[in-house]
Amino acid sequence: MSALLESYAAGRWFRAADDGEPLLDAATGEEVARISSRGLDVAAMVRHAKDTGGPALRSLTFHERAGLLKALAKHLLERKEELYALSVRTGATARDTAVDVDGGIGTLFSYGSKGVRELPNDTVVLDGGLERLGKGGTFAGQHLYTSRPGVAVQINAFNFPVWGMLEKLGPAFLAGLPTIVKPASQTAYLTELAVRYIIESGILPEGTLQLLAGSARGLLDELTIQDCVAFTGSAHTAGILRRHPNVLDGGVALNVEADSLNCSILGPDVGPDDPEFDLFVKGVVTEMTVKAGQKCTAIRRVLVPTGLASQVVDALADRLGKVGVGDPRNDAVRMGPLASLGQREEVRKAVEALLAGSEVAFGDPKGAALLDGDPERGAFMTPLVLRARPGAVEPHDVEPFGPVSTVIGYDGLDDAVALAARGRGSLVASLATHDPGVARSVVLGLAPWHGRVLVLDRDDAKESTGHGSPLPVLVHGGPGRAGGGEELGGVRGVLHHMQRTAVQASPDQLTAITGRWTTGAARTESQVHPFRKSLAELRIGDTIASAPRTVSLADIDHFSEFTGDTFYAHTDPEAAARNPLFGGIVAHGYLVVSLAAGLFVDPAPGPVLANFGVDSLRFLTPVKAGDSIAVTLTVKQITPRGNADYGEVRWDAVVTNQDGAPVATYDVLTLVAKTWEAS
Amino acid sequence: MSALLESYAAGRWFRAADDGEPLLDAATGEEVARISSRGLDVAAMVRHAKDTGGPALRSLTFHERAGLLKALAKHLLERKEELYALSVRTGATARDTAVDVDGGIGTLFSYGSKGVRELPNDTVVLDGGLERLGKGGTFAGQHLYTSRPGVAVQINAFNFPVWGMLEKLGPAFLAGLPTIVKPASQTAYLTELAVRYIIESGILPEGTLQLLAGSARGLLDELTIQDCVAFTGSAHTAGILRRHPNVLDGGVALNVEADSLNCSILGPDVGPDDPEFDLFVKGVVTEMTVKAGQKCTAIRRVLVPTGLASQVVDALADRLGKVGVGDPRNDAVRMGPLASLGQREEVRKAVEALLAGSEVAFGDPKGAALLDGDPERGAFMTPLVLRARPGAVEPHDVEPFGPVSTVIGYDGLDDAVALAARGRGSLVASLATHDPGVARSVVLGLAPWHGRVLVLDRDDAKESTGHGSPLPVLVHGGPGRAGGGEELGGVRGVLHHMQRTAVQASPDQLTAITGRWTTGAARTESQVHPFRKSLAELRIGDTIASAPRTVSLADIDHFSEFTGDTFYAHTDPEAAARNPLFGGIVAHGYLVVSLAAGLFVDPAPGPVLANFGVDSLRFLTPVKAGDSIAVTLTVKQITPRGNADYGEVRWDAVVTNQDGAPVATYDVLTLVAKTWEAS
Repeated sequence: MSALLESYAAGRWFRAADDGEPLLDAATGEEVARISSRGLDVAAMVRHAKDTGGPALRSLTFHERAGLLKALAKHLLERKEELYALSVRTGATARDTAVDVDGGIGTLFSYGSKGVRELPNDTVVLDGGLERLGKGGTFAGQHLYTSRPGVAVQINAFNFPVWGMLEKLGPAFLAGLPTIVKPASQTAYLTELAVRYIIESGILPEGTLQLLAGSARGLLDELTIQDCVAFTGSAHTAGILRRHPNVLDGGVALNVEADSLNCSILGPDVGPDDPEFDLFVKGVVTEMTVKAGQKCTAIRRVLVPTGLASQVVDALADRLGKVGVGDPRNDAVRMGPLASLGQREEVRKAVEALLAGSEVAFGDPKGAALLDGDPERGAFMTPLVLRARPGAVEPHDVEPFGPVSTVIGYDGLDDAVALAARGRGSLVASLATHDPGVARSVVLGLAPWHGRVLVLDRDDAKESTGHGSPLPVLVHGGPGRAGGGEELGGVRGVLHHMQRTAVQASPDQLTAITGRWTTGAARTESQVHPFRKSLAELRIGDTIASAPRTVSLADIDHFSEFTGDTFYAHTDPEAAARNPLFGGIVAHGYLVVSLAAGLFVDPAPGPVLANFGVDSLRFLTPVKAGDSIAVTLTVKQITPRGNADYGEVRWDAVVTNQDGAPVATYDVLTLVAKTWEAS
Repeated sequence: MSALLESYAAGRWFRAADDGEPLLDAATGEEVARISSRGLDVAAMVRHAKDTGGPALRSLTFHERAGLLKALAKHLLERKEELYALSVRTGATARDTAVDVDGGIGTLFSYGSKGVRELPNDTVVLDGGLERLGKGGTFAGQHLYTSRPGVAVQINAFNFPVWGMLEKLGPAFLAGLPTIVKPASQTAYLTELAVRYIIESGILPEGTLQLLAGSARGLLDELTIQDCVAFTGSAHTAGILRRHPNVLDGGVALNVEADSLNCSILGPDVGPDDPEFDLFVKGVVTEMTVKAGQKCTAIRRVLVPTGLASQVVDALADRLGKVGVGDPRNDAVRMGPLASLGQREEVRKAVEALLAGSEVAFGDPKGAALLDGDPERGAFMTPLVLRARPGAVEPHDVEPFGPVSTVIGYDGLDDAVALAARGRGSLVASLATHDPGVARSVVLGLAPWHGRVLVLDRDDAKESTGHGSPLPVLVHGGPGRAGGGEELGGVRGVLHHMQRTAVQASPDQLTAITGRWTTGAARTESQVHPFRKSLAELRIGDTIASAPRTVSLADIDHFSEFTGDTFYAHTDPEAAARNPLFGGIVAHGYLVVSLAAGLFVDPAPGPVLANFGVDSLRFLTPVKAGDSIAVTLTVKQITPRGNADYGEVRWDAVVTNQDGAPVATYDVLTLVAKTWEAS
């Protein structure tokens, strides 16, 4: 008997009391492992996550969490070979495993990077700008995101035992939520191995990742308002989860990413000799054969101009005929078996249903001409192309979760979009076209029905990641049948796990709450110029209010001549007088900000290393010759960088004129040394 | 018999075949109107919305839609008196009606304004920046929001018959979704009057607003994946809606905003003599008495330091004792009746349940000492303060939807936050404190449990809009018991109604799809400088690529002297050499952008009126003496302004050096005349 998989629960590896159920090698039918969660205390797992994992995680800043994800990605990268070796037992070819293992590790790297670049080195995320709620400026609103004191339960599908876990763990971890991962049993041995590597690394704080191998019975009963469930799998199981009382009435957030009837569309502009025709056919073949078509993003419907349907079928048949099917241990094999005999049975049933409205155009629903492998014990199936009869309804309703696609003819762009929509919401659609008009019309028609749309043409083909690949930086999920959820999408996927709250308060209180200086809050002026303070010494609100400087007509003339910016509003009094906004000569906006820098800068070497940018510069009142300007610069946000001896300081800059009217507002971005000793 | 309310359905006013049910004046018990939807073809309403309203609406840009909302707000403002006159029959005092009618109109104005300022003059909204998906830059991702080809069904509560409709209509309309509004029967006569004014104005395109007066039976059965339901009301009814098959499995999006057990917390730093004590008490009294406490945002739980509970009760009693209750037609009346005798019965039952763990501290659960009005026929109730016994559970579970609040003692900040959380998710919490440490600690503790948190102190009191007021610019809704939904929040409330899609394509295709120039897309250079083209003539991608200009040490020296920006990196070779980022003298960033302007500007009077700002300026490569820079300026986005003879043009600016390395990237914002004739 093979080894019983263990759960990692409440800080230790748990082994069920019984022998569990066998999990079989997809190609050979041999037993790989056994699985059971009998006797597992799921309530203790939830408590452990909330009492131990959550608090530890939320005491870290986003940058610190991101650093751990990056370290974890490196750790797993070093164990890639072992993961590959075990992955073959799921039926995965090396190409399939790359999607799962390298894809999963890459997702961690992406979140490690996005977490540092796009989230603050803090525990609160601000959402949008300040909303002024009163004319006096004493009452304002700021939206912010905070971490929920809950747990993220992640229920994954069998097809990506590594990526499925890591793509959900990454965003949840960044968001401050501890994870309980429940892989599909069929391939849970690979998830278990990955979790073992993660736990033994000691990189993640204890309690932030637990593994539930086997049935999750009773787990949802333990969840409450601050908890969430992210589910990937069938629409049927999603429906069961949606009906759980804690989801219906208990405030548990449920995010569903379900299989869908994704389509790929051949644009009407594409002829058989265009590069896009070949790209389209290649894309369909790839999606049919990677993971033997067992991907929620695979192409189920192939929409082509009716007149080209036969040529597309021929081209597909030509390519598919060359795909060797068999045991993935054989290097010549391009497509492995389905995950289990049960899965093959499901696909065969779906094909039978599809055949009510379609006929077989390529392949044999029953046959399996194999390069290698035992067709009885292994869950092998060869690729199958169906061709829908006009008006067939089945291709839009029945999902064969295997290497099966249906070619459907369309007549005109509107028909193509309407047929795509008949899938009732999909994860992804793709379109092969080189015509920008077709691209705009079809993509905007598809968009409300899809979470992702890919346009394939000769220009992007080389770098295209393909129809079927969710990317960490793009949202994954779709409306309707696809589950209605969203995950990934860079920081979007992190914020999905957090609570957005509108906070209303005085600017001083908002500054205290958010840790970022808020317009209208107190400023701290001191004898020491803030440019002489290191990152460690600077405080939110530290301010330099400059002396005034008069801007003369000579200054404006000179700046025009020096920079070459001789725009008439700065040089030609008569033409400038006719300008509806100025009514006379005005100073260049760039002159104003240049002079402002001269007013606030402290010239001697010090902790301020560089000005690396300016954000949201707006010119509000024209500066005319003889006007006098002054600038106030205030520390708005301080962001230490984890991997450098300096950090970023964002300064609020306001330039005013002699009447106190605002001339320009902007943020100045500087790099400031963490420490500094005057030499 | 009073008049039967009509529905506005499929382009005409519909009158039910039967006599309907009577709706009674809240104070006098007289019949105001009758209501019935018998015979109404709800399927035809959905079809009309989708076939007529939706397409008309989505053919308008966001700015055009916003303009219609503004016109509608003005139209309703002119009919305010009539709405006020009818509103009194709901039991509303003038103060209550201001919240409903003026609040609703104000929400339309706010969306009219936000729609122009924060959405493009287009039909697609971009979400976030471009995601580069390949090193070569030929494949990129862009998230965008598109309008759903569906209908927004809005089911409103009885307490705000005007605001409830307008606050949902505004964002849905902007999002391109036609509305079917179904007001609560009890006060539907006021909604019907408002809808009559709206329809007769002809401002909204036909089919974008329909009214369903009476039972909505069968309406949800007609909805499908692109449709959404926004519901405000009880958690019980929300639960019924969540169980509808079209919501559970049909992809209908349901947004719930339910009553919740909101709390207000008196900070431990506040003593009886501090201004915050008085502000706190005033706030509680206001929330108890406005709309006779029939607000989903009203304060049900009053959390105070245990030692101050008696003083708070006394202060509440003192103020509440002066509130005159009675028929709102009497000017001396400060609080009117509940909406109906049935509502009063509900509140009395809730009070009975609360009394299991509390005692009456002020008021009489049965009594109603009235200034005016018939206590038998009018649904009058006087304010009631309960005081919870230590450990009482009822105040956290039972919601009295009337002028009833329970004072609960807390011990320490953690206890206050924990008690607040026992409401299992609320719309809003407020905190009276003048201590920034208390504000930060409590607000961040409350945030995951609340959609809105208000901090009240001496600084913001004058301008504070109060605990109970949802504002159009801030999100409204809360987690858990509060329904888990979000509405309003400015543009956030619009985007909730739209579909987010990640589009992957080549830069050229992305430019075509989004209508905005994308980095890497083709640029169009022509003989005519783009500054000589009017808004009507300019095209996305129009480009000026400048000649190069050498930046000499003399330029840098001179700029330092002229502007006063003598930062050592520009002036002191030895110190600059020690700078870890520069390693020698570098040109000022402001010098670079000033010279760049000199390189791209076309000086003579023309359609370009002004540079009003710069966004996202980043200095990427230092410019050293002797380096040569050139700038490329490309039209990225064109936004005509509806109410001016010019529009905004956003230009992509890239400054490169002699090696082609990027020196600076930024967006330049200009105002350009719609038309221009060279004189």
